Amino acid sequence: MEQFSPTAKTTLKRLPKRGVFDRTTVYKILDEAFICHVGFVVDGQPFVVPTGYGRIGDQLYIHGSAASRMLRSLAEGIEVCVTVTLIDGLVLARTAFHHSFNYRSVMIFGRAKLVEDAEEKMAALKAFTEQVIAGRWDDVRWPNEQEMKATSVLVLPLEEVSAKVRTGPPLDDEEDMELPVWAGVIPLHLHAENPIDAPDLRSSLAPPAYATNYIRPLAEE
Amino acid sequence: MEQFSPTAKTTLKRLPKRGVFDRTTVYKILDEAFICHVGFVVDGQPFVVPTGYGRIGDQLYIHGSAASRMLRSLAEGIEVCVTVTLIDGLVLARTAFHHSFNYRSVMIFGRAKLVEDAEEKMAALKAFTEQVIAGRWDDVRWPNEQEMKATSVLVLPLEEVSAKVRTGPPLDDEEDMELPVWAGVIPLHLHAENPIDAPDLRSSLAPPAYATNYIRPLAEE
Repeated sequence: MEQFSPTAKTTLKRLPKRGVFDRTTVYKILDEAFICHVGFVVDGQPFVVPTGYGRIGDQLYIHGSAASRMLRSLAEGIEVCVTVTLIDGLVLARTAFHHSFNYRSVMIFGRAKLVEDAEEKMAALKAFTEQVIAGRWDDVRWPNEQEMKATSVLVLPLEEVSAKVRTGPPLDDEEDMELPVWAGVIPLHLHAENPIDAPDLRSSLAPPAYATNYIRPLAEE
Repeated sequence: MEQFSPTAKTTLKRLPKRGVFDRTTVYKILDEAFICHVGFVVDGQPFVVPTGYGRIGDQLYIHGSAASRMLRSLAEGIEVCVTVTLIDGLVLARTAFHHSFNYRSVMIFGRAKLVEDAEEKMAALKAFTEQVIAGRWDDVRWPNEQEMKATSVLVLPLEEVSAKVRTGPPLDDEEDMELPVWAGVIPLHLHAENPIDAPDLRSSLAPPAYATNYIRPLAEE
């Protein structure tokens, strides 16, 4: 299925032209970011928790330890809304009203379930690490039995999903075009500085290439 | 009140030492970021919507248009959880288990209410713009009556609030210290590129200094 099927929850009420259901676009956003905001409800109260994630095919894996409150509610599965947001630029219009952001965001609805299978769980832990920094997993000591027990992983099927995207310049109204105000876009991206050795690092170890050349894909590529 | 009072919702269950209730620290995080994730519940279903915000004193203003679903539920006020997250670095440990992020996040609980007063609403719209790019408000055409009507603003008192902060190097267990694996931190920050003129910009207008020198405060300052 190349397109997600729009549902009542994923159909945009405002600015429907910004809605995107194309699976390739959605997955590109999910693969470029590495932090999501997980929303869930406990006793009628919403909670929004930032946490890491990883994607394997049509499944999203969430680091459950960041959402221990959520785990208390887990039995058959808990309704969640997982939102991933990339900010690509500031859109400066001639008028306050038309200021905006260029962004790409994904909203995923569904029931998150605890991953019980050890093999699937290990694959998810690898996905968490590789999502953040590709190549890292092969270099580190993998989780042992005790660490596996101490980590909770949730899985959420990528079924009810939509993206919302804004790109391009500001769009002022015709009657404001002649205002003597600069208008345009300030592109933004996440920038990595030089890696900092841990203070207790053995002196013979240099940072690997994936750390010295760390870069997230730019918005425009 | 210099400290927020911890409540059942804002007390951390995991890693309580990362919990911060100091108002100065919380406000510094809120002032450095400009995107929040608003969580709310409609018919038992959680929604998490990214949107801009502005702070005026002990009030957080949320751009309501991004949360039109939320507005349908607004009467006395709707329970929200607003989360603001800054990612300051990748923490690469010798072991997969101890990988982490350096981050600063704020969670705000409360009832958001629609702002009806025109003066307060205009002040909030100014705060939205200035939150993103200080100095911009004075340069642009301010919202007219029609635009004011088309914009919904929500206000949330900063009462039930906590922050969570991680800083510093990776912390591996003693028995893993001799592993031949590089460990350290890759600092991250939001980077602005050169501003791009709107294609329909009058040729005599140059980008203002706040656009050419746009920078968010760095984590380490």
